[in-house]
Amino acid sequence: MAASQQDVQVNNEDQDDSSTTDADSLIRSNDPLHPANRISDLCRRFYTLGWVTGTGGGVSIRHGNHIFLAPSGVQKEMMQPTDMFVMDFQTKQYVRRPQALKPSACTPLFLAAYTKRNAGCCIHTHSQWAVLVTLICEARLQTPAERNVFAIKEIEQIKGISRGGSGSDEIAEGGRKVGNLGFYDTMKIPIIENEAHEEDLTGALEKAIEEWPEACAVLVRRHGVYVWGKDVAQAKTQAESLDYLFQLAVEMHKLGLKWT
Amino acid sequence: MAASQQDVQVNNEDQDDSSTTDADSLIRSNDPLHPANRISDLCRRFYTLGWVTGTGGGVSIRHGNHIFLAPSGVQKEMMQPTDMFVMDFQTKQYVRRPQALKPSACTPLFLAAYTKRNAGCCIHTHSQWAVLVTLICEARLQTPAERNVFAIKEIEQIKGISRGGSGSDEIAEGGRKVGNLGFYDTMKIPIIENEAHEEDLTGALEKAIEEWPEACAVLVRRHGVYVWGKDVAQAKTQAESLDYLFQLAVEMHKLGLKWT
Amino acid sequence: MAASQQDVQVNNEDQDDSSTTDADSLIRSNDPLHPANRISDLCRRFYTLGWVTGTGGGVSIRHGNHIFLAPSGVQKEMMQPTDMFVMDFQTKQYVRRPQALKPSACTPLFLAAYTKRNAGCCIHTHSQWAVLVTLICEARLQTPAERNVFAIKEIEQIKGISRGGSGSDEIAEGGRKVGNLGFYDTMKIPIIENEAHEEDLTGALEKAIEEWPEACAVLVRRHGVYVWGKDVAQAKTQAESLDYLFQLAVEMHKLGLKWT
Amino acid sequence: MAASQQDVQVNNEDQDDSSTTDADSLIRSNDPLHPANRISDLCRRFYTLGWVTGTGGGVSIRHGNHIFLAPSGVQKEMMQPTDMFVMDFQTKQYVRRPQALKPSACTPLFLAAYTKRNAGCCIHTHSQWAVLVTLICEARLQTPAERNVFAIKEIEQIKGISRGGSGSDEIAEGGRKVGNLGFYDTMKIPIIENEAHEEDLTGALEKAIEEWPEACAVLVRRHGVYVWGKDVAQAKTQAESLDYLFQLAVEMHKLGLKWT
Repeated sequence: MAASQQDVQVNNEDQDDSSTTDADSLIRSNDPLHPANRISDLCRRFYTLGWVTGTGGGVSIRHGNHIFLAPSGVQKEMMQPTDMFVMDFQTKQYVRRPQALKPSACTPLFLAAYTKRNAGCCIHTHSQWAVLVTLICEARLQTPAERNVFAIKEIEQIKGISRGGSGSDEIAEGGRKVGNLGFYDTMKIPIIENEAHEEDLTGALEKAIEEWPEACAVLVRRHGVYVWGKDVAQAKTQAESLDYLFQLAVEMHKLGLKWT
Repeated sequence: MAASQQDVQVNNEDQDDSSTTDADSLIRSNDPLHPANRISDLCRRFYTLGWVTGTGGGVSIRHGNHIFLAPSGVQKEMMQPTDMFVMDFQTKQYVRRPQALKPSACTPLFLAAYTKRNAGCCIHTHSQWAVLVTLICEARLQTPAERNVFAIKEIEQIKGISRGGSGSDEIAEGGRKVGNLGFYDTMKIPIIENEAHEEDLTGALEKAIEEWPEACAVLVRRHGVYVWGKDVAQAKTQAESLDYLFQLAVEMHKLGLKWT
Repeated sequence: MAASQQDVQVNNEDQDDSSTTDADSLIRSNDPLHPANRISDLCRRFYTLGWVTGTGGGVSIRHGNHIFLAPSGVQKEMMQPTDMFVMDFQTKQYVRRPQALKPSACTPLFLAAYTKRNAGCCIHTHSQWAVLVTLICEARLQTPAERNVFAIKEIEQIKGISRGGSGSDEIAEGGRKVGNLGFYDTMKIPIIENEAHEEDLTGALEKAIEEWPEACAVLVRRHGVYVWGKDVAQAKTQAESLDYLFQLAVEMHKLGLKWT
Repeated sequence: MAASQQDVQVNNEDQDDSSTTDADSLIRSNDPLHPANRISDLCRRFYTLGWVTGTGGGVSIRHGNHIFLAPSGVQKEMMQPTDMFVMDFQTKQYVRRPQALKPSACTPLFLAAYTKRNAGCCIHTHSQWAVLVTLICEARLQTPAERNVFAIKEIEQIKGISRGGSGSDEIAEGGRKVGNLGFYDTMKIPIIENEAHEEDLTGALEKAIEEWPEACAVLVRRHGVYVWGKDVAQAKTQAESLDYLFQLAVEMHKLGLKWT
């Protein structure tokens, strides 16, 4: 990706860059690990998991000073590198905007994780397990503190979650993930209330990220979950581990089993 | 698709057009977006979702003055472009009929959405979630008005549904879908009673479409759902969003959670 | 398949035919619809549906005077045409036996459907939905007549089932399947008790086939289901429709909804 | 695989062998059945089954005097032969260590099955069905003997399980698996308590293997299951049969049906 020079020239959000060769060079690569190719691939994978049904959800990768973002309204399993928006992380201006598309409403939410957690990748899913977990918490009529946090402990898969979501992924000689939660730790994910418009979640999401420094994700009631990681591998495996835990928690609840 | 001239010559339903080169030109194209190829592809995708098990369900696309229809009795995951029926929208006569096949019983039901909603694509699934939702409504022994409508609100995925099913899919700058239902809107899908023979549903389905101008679909008790959209993308993503909401509603019901 | 001449030469079950070119010609074909290729393909498909987990279940096709049978103990998703046993339908002798494999314990059960229903294809699955339906019937402590039959009505998917399992699949002009059950018919599938050894099911299965001439299948308590059809398409689509109905029935039972 | 000579030269765990051609020859082969290729393939398959979500779980194959082991922390669906660790079974020293990776924490647990059961392949899954079964046993507040064993009988799929996990897979003429459990046998799988660190399970797992000579697996409470077999086919099909039985048991429990 030899696109760093072009970024300087293009920093006005009102300017349509989609027709310029310079902006397109940001998303053209034969490397499957290039962010534009990687997001397309992740969208296809997440579609088969039921996380991004009906154009819902979103995926973003930070690559140096560029934020790559899947657009709004595109069927995720058909996503192409040419559909990608690219934003300059410093100026928050788009340096590539596909002409026929609109930016994702998730954009300010993803920026919160990039800014406050130094994340390298953010994933937003509408997974039914995430939604059901928030509904169960809501219905249990507990104290506000309890209603607004999903907590689970003593399940092995918790060990797949790093402290803060973008912590060290160092593995010790015996296979122990030293930067991650342990089996006896309680994993807590804050739940914020949904808003009519996705961008209006930004304040509450930023507040939750600040108040829960150990959380790797924020649940949105009746909506889904935002997960991040320091890179694609960490964000994706944490999204998988979380979804596993949400699904298990719903099944446990059906069977009358306690989460903590 | 340079087939518009042939249509004039062929308008008798009793005439077998399947052997003519003219009619076949209607369904031969290397373009994966051609309706005959698209329907075959959608049938394969819907099979893996469990929507068209055992030759059930159906898919149709309107392309200009032509209605393309998957036939009756063919295994959906093996559907081929050559299996397609093509109907002239004005005359309602088949301009292509595969000799060995029979038209789908869904045909008059799809026509209702094309005529009354100006739809561009119709999808009929036997999804178990759709059937279960109608059974739960039936069993709750509510007033007729309540038994015959599936209603749910304050779930983010509702925002994937356009008003009337074929409304504008305009997306505002922030990613807001301006033609769609909002988070605080109650999505209502009418439920009609099933009949012994699918074509006998036509009257009740037309009546439901007229009485529920905001609905994007009609549920058929103990049978499935008819969904439409102004084009393939809108019909497909709405079918996905609806199925997500039906599944979530069944899970919510199991957990004792209210839909509205 | 130019193998008809060789069949005459090979009719001794004790003779190992797997090394002979003559017997191998029975299962070598470039035609994907050849029974040996078709069974391999079906085994792979059924594996992904969870019907033939852990080498369980079985598939067989009758082709003229030959019965093609998947072997015992082979992982279904890795099945190859060369794994197939071929039996002469008149003499019931194997005309092809892979040297390293053993015939399926399902063989006498499949023969019952070929003989008594003139079936062209038989499918045996261990689907959990089939097993759960038999367990629910067992637990309801009804009269013997009720415990030993799964009955369901007024579900559209019932219309995917032919009377007797191998009846006409004629479709009338409107898409109506004239040889199949109707929406208001009660579909009844007999349930027989399992035995320690699969071949010991033969008598009870034959009796059930005789006593239930309208059934397209026989359930085996705590075991699975045997389904047949006059050809591969009918057997497969009926197996799909039945599995759909079993799954729906389990979900209905969880929700407190009646099957009939 | 012409790597047997190199093994003698490399037996020091502290030595980094990943850069040597000798060690790499252990995992390079065009044969899809070579252990390094096979483990990669199994990891991809198990990922789609939900057994190894978020880098969880593990797979190992014994090939002569070599133990092949998938590493820690690698996404299972992206596993490559070059990721494999290879251990000398006699000396328990790694003869191949990928420089950037760490050995799996499952290693001592897999060795227990190789040593005490003469296994040829070990599989560790985090399947939710396995976890739920251990939680249901825990919650039933039975005697310690009952809480620590999962037992089920009279389900056909039990016949897919060999006595001791690595017993004979001989199949008699009628398809009967003579080395396996029968329909009327009670399959018992011991459950051990989880530990903060996976390697600390070794003692309890070895004890369970010794005390339950007929078991083909050990469940770990709130964690998952270890399954083995004398070869890949037996280990994989037993893992499938067990998972089928765990899932069925959870569904039976939801429906109020007894396991034994």
